[in-house]
Amino acid sequence: MSDTVVVIGGGPAGIEAARNIADLGMKAVLVEERERLGGTPIFESYAALTPHFDDAEEAMDGMIAALAERAGADVRTNSTVTAISGEAGDFVVTVDGPSGSEEVAAGAVVLCTGFTHFDPGRERQIYNYYQYPDVLALQDLEVMLKAHDVRVPSTGKVPERICWVQCVGSRDRNIGNEYCSKVCCGVASKQAIEVRKIAPDSRAYIFYIDMRMYGYWEQQIYWPAQEQYHVQYIKGIITEILEKQGGLIVRGEDTTMGRPMEVAMDMVVLSVGMEPSEGTKTMAGVLGVEQNKYGFIEVARPPLDTVSTNREGIFAAGAALGPADLEDTISSAGAAASKAVALIRRGSPAVV
Amino acid sequence: MSDTVVVIGGGPAGIEAARNIADLGMKAVLVEERERLGGTPIFESYAALTPHFDDAEEAMDGMIAALAERAGADVRTNSTVTAISGEAGDFVVTVDGPSGSEEVAAGAVVLCTGFTHFDPGRERQIYNYYQYPDVLALQDLEVMLKAHDVRVPSTGKVPERICWVQCVGSRDRNIGNEYCSKVCCGVASKQAIEVRKIAPDSRAYIFYIDMRMYGYWEQQIYWPAQEQYHVQYIKGIITEILEKQGGLIVRGEDTTMGRPMEVAMDMVVLSVGMEPSEGTKTMAGVLGVEQNKYGFIEVARPPLDTVSTNREGIFAAGAALGPADLEDTISSAGAAASKAVALIRRGSPAVV
Repeated sequence: MSDTVVVIGGGPAGIEAARNIADLGMKAVLVEERERLGGTPIFESYAALTPHFDDAEEAMDGMIAALAERAGADVRTNSTVTAISGEAGDFVVTVDGPSGSEEVAAGAVVLCTGFTHFDPGRERQIYNYYQYPDVLALQDLEVMLKAHDVRVPSTGKVPERICWVQCVGSRDRNIGNEYCSKVCCGVASKQAIEVRKIAPDSRAYIFYIDMRMYGYWEQQIYWPAQEQYHVQYIKGIITEILEKQGGLIVRGEDTTMGRPMEVAMDMVVLSVGMEPSEGTKTMAGVLGVEQNKYGFIEVARPPLDTVSTNREGIFAAGAALGPADLEDTISSAGAAASKAVALIRRGSPAVV
Repeated sequence: MSDTVVVIGGGPAGIEAARNIADLGMKAVLVEERERLGGTPIFESYAALTPHFDDAEEAMDGMIAALAERAGADVRTNSTVTAISGEAGDFVVTVDGPSGSEEVAAGAVVLCTGFTHFDPGRERQIYNYYQYPDVLALQDLEVMLKAHDVRVPSTGKVPERICWVQCVGSRDRNIGNEYCSKVCCGVASKQAIEVRKIAPDSRAYIFYIDMRMYGYWEQQIYWPAQEQYHVQYIKGIITEILEKQGGLIVRGEDTTMGRPMEVAMDMVVLSVGMEPSEGTKTMAGVLGVEQNKYGFIEVARPPLDTVSTNREGIFAAGAALGPADLEDTISSAGAAASKAVALIRRGSPAVV
């Protein structure tokens, strides 16, 4: 029985899982394929975190610094897990890194390989994302927000009219993603607030099907967006985006008014949904854990066990399991750490 | 430094926290004021759990049985926490139980005292809940669903037309609950499916503002409700419910059609939201932890710490923190257990 837990993926879930494991007296080997920790908030240049507008880089740096203080946490960047053998309590995990291949004895594994943003060109060109420079995705706008400089790409001017189109790559049977990506209503609204702060003369519109500001997001983001920042929410279906006279025309149906609409915009932001990252799909194969039809990791015993996969001793946390906000991610990482350490302490596979 | 964690509240969060604590090698003293464990799913006679329709009683009995196998878990029913002194690592918790008052040395405390259903008569009579026998709340219908016998209270007949009114006690500034209660869209839809299974000739309608079926609930509940069970979703605001000719009249505005509506129903179910339980409010005072304006426990460092209160060594999990579904609850309970045990292991207050 090894006292080591291999954590795969160095984003928020992986860092939180590794920290908890170290704090529980076990050794965490955190394997990250990129050159540094931080995950999607860092590599996609997120500006502010939902819902409290904390600076994303500062927040992640804080997590990374706290992890670095833990003697029990061994971080391996530029490294990937390429094989696993053995069973719960006595896995041998092959980690390929800069100094070659190493076999790590591990009692348990926590998979934290997260999500990727839906690609609006994955199957067909959706809303001309690749054709029109002024049609962005959520993560493209994050880069501008982080620089505190929001400009219409084709003109270099501050946008006068900007809109978000919700549910791009989510709730869509045609592209195979029936699920709701959960966070995009909150993220779009957070971005709209940030744009209105940076460019107070702009007008911001969000076209949505259902505004899914669950729990406290309702009063933390949705009400201020409307009342303090005058973001306009329009229940409607956007059918196409066209270029016209140097600007964009957004066409669709205003479902509340029950009539077609055609509105001019300088910039359109596609609220792209969550899909499993390449790392999640690859690691599911390497580890031999079940995926759901979307490619996310399948939880074996929901809803009363949120982190166990079908393979004993292998747990998953965060957005590798499906759409998750940061709080979901942090909680499930703590829960996965607890179950992984418990398994090692017991010296035998999990008692349910 | 005590190796004991006192867990307050014996519902899903408390049971899960106590199990994790015991599995991590510490002692959990689980204090429950009622005569048995199980919490709201048991005491409100929940039928099936969202989203997979597991039998609620069986699921809770399974959790309770698993906890009973843990030597490290000491369950105190008919007991309450009445005082606390000391500080993180060295609390003395006063537990009043059937055999008198006891001082329990504890390194940490996890508060799992949950929520209560919004009372539609709390401030004013909303929708004549207390006046009309055929106007129910979600938990009233759960009792019928558990018995597999859904009847219109005033007639004893199987309902021909039943509807749910969403956001009762949620998203409502007038009653002080600005937040969205998160689970009611899912629960109402789950109930509508159950009613249609039990009474296939009934017609089921859900009146909603936004249908907040976040994440996988979209395809787990919302799509089957519409496609397999023909539940009808109507975006609308219900302004009043009246009795007329032995039935109920639901009046409001269909916001999609943009016109007033008046529809006859045999039964109306109010989708009441979540409020902090009496236990949550009382224990916040006893433990000296901060509450938000709604009375739920305030998390000190969101979103990257989801379970720490403002008082070092006192953590909270589940719906004591605010609207939460079962998966949120189980994950946060695991995370709180991990942090509580880590604090004791370190022998000093939390390193952030």
